[in-house]
Amino acid sequence: MEADLVIIGAGSGGYEAAIYAYRRGMKTVLVELSPETVGGNCLNKGCIPSKYMRYGAYLIDRFGVMERYGIIPRGFDIDYGKLAKGRDEVVVTIRENFKKFAKQINLPIIYGRGVVKDPNTVFVEGPEERIRTRFILIATGSRPVALGDLVPDGRYVLNTDQVWEIEDLPGRVLIVGGGAVGVEFAYIFRRYGAEVVLVELKRRILPSDDIPEDSARYLTRKLRSLGVDVRTKTTVEFWERTERGVRAKLSDGTETEADFILLAVGREPNTSGIGLEEIGVEKDRRGFIRVNEFCQTAVQNIYACGDVTSPLMLAHKAMYEGKIAVNHMLGGRDWRRDDRIVPKIIYSALEVASVGLTEDQAEEEGYEVKVGVSSFVTNPKAMDDGENEGFVRIVADEDSGEILGCHIVGPHAGELIHQVVHMMRRRMDVEFASKTLYSHPSLSEAVGQSASEIHYGPITWVKR
Amino acid sequence: MEADLVIIGAGSGGYEAAIYAYRRGMKTVLVELSPETVGGNCLNKGCIPSKYMRYGAYLIDRFGVMERYGIIPRGFDIDYGKLAKGRDEVVVTIRENFKKFAKQINLPIIYGRGVVKDPNTVFVEGPEERIRTRFILIATGSRPVALGDLVPDGRYVLNTDQVWEIEDLPGRVLIVGGGAVGVEFAYIFRRYGAEVVLVELKRRILPSDDIPEDSARYLTRKLRSLGVDVRTKTTVEFWERTERGVRAKLSDGTETEADFILLAVGREPNTSGIGLEEIGVEKDRRGFIRVNEFCQTAVQNIYACGDVTSPLMLAHKAMYEGKIAVNHMLGGRDWRRDDRIVPKIIYSALEVASVGLTEDQAEEEGYEVKVGVSSFVTNPKAMDDGENEGFVRIVADEDSGEILGCHIVGPHAGELIHQVVHMMRRRMDVEFASKTLYSHPSLSEAVGQSASEIHYGPITWVKR
Repeated sequence: MEADLVIIGAGSGGYEAAIYAYRRGMKTVLVELSPETVGGNCLNKGCIPSKYMRYGAYLIDRFGVMERYGIIPRGFDIDYGKLAKGRDEVVVTIRENFKKFAKQINLPIIYGRGVVKDPNTVFVEGPEERIRTRFILIATGSRPVALGDLVPDGRYVLNTDQVWEIEDLPGRVLIVGGGAVGVEFAYIFRRYGAEVVLVELKRRILPSDDIPEDSARYLTRKLRSLGVDVRTKTTVEFWERTERGVRAKLSDGTETEADFILLAVGREPNTSGIGLEEIGVEKDRRGFIRVNEFCQTAVQNIYACGDVTSPLMLAHKAMYEGKIAVNHMLGGRDWRRDDRIVPKIIYSALEVASVGLTEDQAEEEGYEVKVGVSSFVTNPKAMDDGENEGFVRIVADEDSGEILGCHIVGPHAGELIHQVVHMMRRRMDVEFASKTLYSHPSLSEAVGQSASEIHYGPITWVKR
Repeated sequence: MEADLVIIGAGSGGYEAAIYAYRRGMKTVLVELSPETVGGNCLNKGCIPSKYMRYGAYLIDRFGVMERYGIIPRGFDIDYGKLAKGRDEVVVTIRENFKKFAKQINLPIIYGRGVVKDPNTVFVEGPEERIRTRFILIATGSRPVALGDLVPDGRYVLNTDQVWEIEDLPGRVLIVGGGAVGVEFAYIFRRYGAEVVLVELKRRILPSDDIPEDSARYLTRKLRSLGVDVRTKTTVEFWERTERGVRAKLSDGTETEADFILLAVGREPNTSGIGLEEIGVEKDRRGFIRVNEFCQTAVQNIYACGDVTSPLMLAHKAMYEGKIAVNHMLGGRDWRRDDRIVPKIIYSALEVASVGLTEDQAEEEGYEVKVGVSSFVTNPKAMDDGENEGFVRIVADEDSGEILGCHIVGPHAGELIHQVVHMMRRRMDVEFASKTLYSHPSLSEAVGQSASEIHYGPITWVKR
């Protein structure tokens, strides 16, 4: 078999790169472990099923405001089986759509383990297919890690590959790890009726430098108001099985029981055993493949994208890098990796979105920083919709007014942030953002208002 | 009393202009009819209360998808009084916030009818206050029109000033006019349980040239699927009172009964009797004040904004024009009216958003047009949220790729459209829009995909 490009891994990055390569006229072959893993972690065991369950939790939330809209609900029952079924249907539909589409555009998917034999050869174990190719794109993704003696067993300790298999709603869950996955599941399980304890080693949840303290604090308060037992600076010191599940001793001296422990402590790249070392593809000590700004590895015609290139493990980063790699293969030098404009979005009890620098990061980089904040509390559309919690926070360079970052907590933060992503790509300033014609009433007005707070100087809206 | 600027009308345009003038250091006085009308039509009898009720209708919609999320509702009751109360609370809260804020920044609001006596004098009838000023901004808004013998009486025929006063949900409503207000109320009343007949004179609902046929057709189908009896090319030929309400003979030969008729056939500007003619402010034959691109009238130091300047009666157009006027008073020549970038958003059974040119308009203007469409049907976030109806449609210039317009129907269209507003301000092209890093999964991805359909050429996604 011959190809212009072989992509190992048909997850978000590999698939998007394949479609893009098709559009650009490259003869491409996708290699993926099995028909059931097409779409990768995001589709099968990540963002897609979790966002589905999160939307259910959000719907349950909405019962809390209905009366104000003259809708008096008579209550509801929960059927976890239906939730899981609906969720799996969406996943399967997207996966099958992917495969049908690949067929339509004559994009072959070869099922098996792809191993790089030399810079122009990929061997697929299983079908024993040898593919000669001009370029290779490594898009093999990542897998969840274990933590000490918290070793996932699918029953007492579940990781994020396994949590989809539970058949009943737990009565009580202990979630270890307060990052994106932890806070999403804390919200989901809590809203569907479980008791939830969330422990995080660091001093705050969402302990990423890219997410400001304020966002984390706001979400912590909200989760606690819903009854999630959030414990920071806390670890599991010891755990054991019980008749009904697990018992854990926490570092704060308390004991807690749960049906199971959900382990959400991070992921590591799938970069071993696929022939990379042998042909000179360089990796760092954590196993990430070293790539340049065009996603090119140390071997000139081999590229990598997504979870294998850095700890910023986001589907859209993978998709973006995949396209940048393909563009570079075809001679394009205009499109480069730019982590500065990668939006990071968490869907928990509130949507938490960030792009670019936080105030702290900007100061560390030597900027004189100005910050503008606009609250959703007084935003008319947010008030109309009964979800006026949160804020838009813009970080700008004092001299030029350039927008360096934006951090949104609240309704549809995950969509609103894109306005700022577009602006940051072109290094636009707060004057631009404050002078756009925002629809009234809209949530988007809060973007303009926080920019105005910087451009025109702050005015105090009604005291809160 | 002396001022730099007197603004007649504290509606969206006047209020926004006042805050902006404050930010820019002008001594400003607002004149408004009464404490109850601060905020104008949008706040008190327009977008804010209607969006509130629309959100309630949307919540009722959501019951239809709950089971897929494992939430089995036991039904609900409707309490129209609570809906009206919640709605009015939001309106009053925003209005009082406005007033408190004005007080905080020492912005006087004088209550009474403002009349222009000479280019530097506004007289407020009632308090009999004479204000000397350098500049005047006319922001007096508009009022609903009657239609033949459909004269609003507050009982049998209601206009959009009166519909807020009803105390019970109607059993059956006849809505005359299929524009934004008509389709919003059709959805609201239908979802809260009423039978609704919607008649529109023209051959389609949303009969504005700025909204493409496709958007109107999609919404028509959706409204009909909910049971709204949409009748285009239809008028009311005759109507009479009955014991329970009204009986109307329609131009299609049928008769229909209803509790009342809601008249939603447009508005006319409030530009009479406030001294404009006398001092030389020019108006067109429909009563709109002639202004230049800086919102300046024929009298150099008198400006106008909002519903009084053109039939594009949108709160945000007023707010934008108000700021442009103030900027020009202070010597700014960099900020001009640009109807091209005014987003138009309708909140009905679906959100319908438009900015810029439709395909037809672009062709009429002589462009070689390319159109890219992306459906929400296959958008993963829309699927996750159980609201994957609608599309994003981008209209671009074939040669340059410049985005000329964007038309979105579907989830959160009213927020998503802002991404394109930002881009259109800087005349960006589809290559830019297709190369932004969109979060996955997000609705915003559909913006990038429709741009990609143009930039890279169309590919057929899975057959629908």
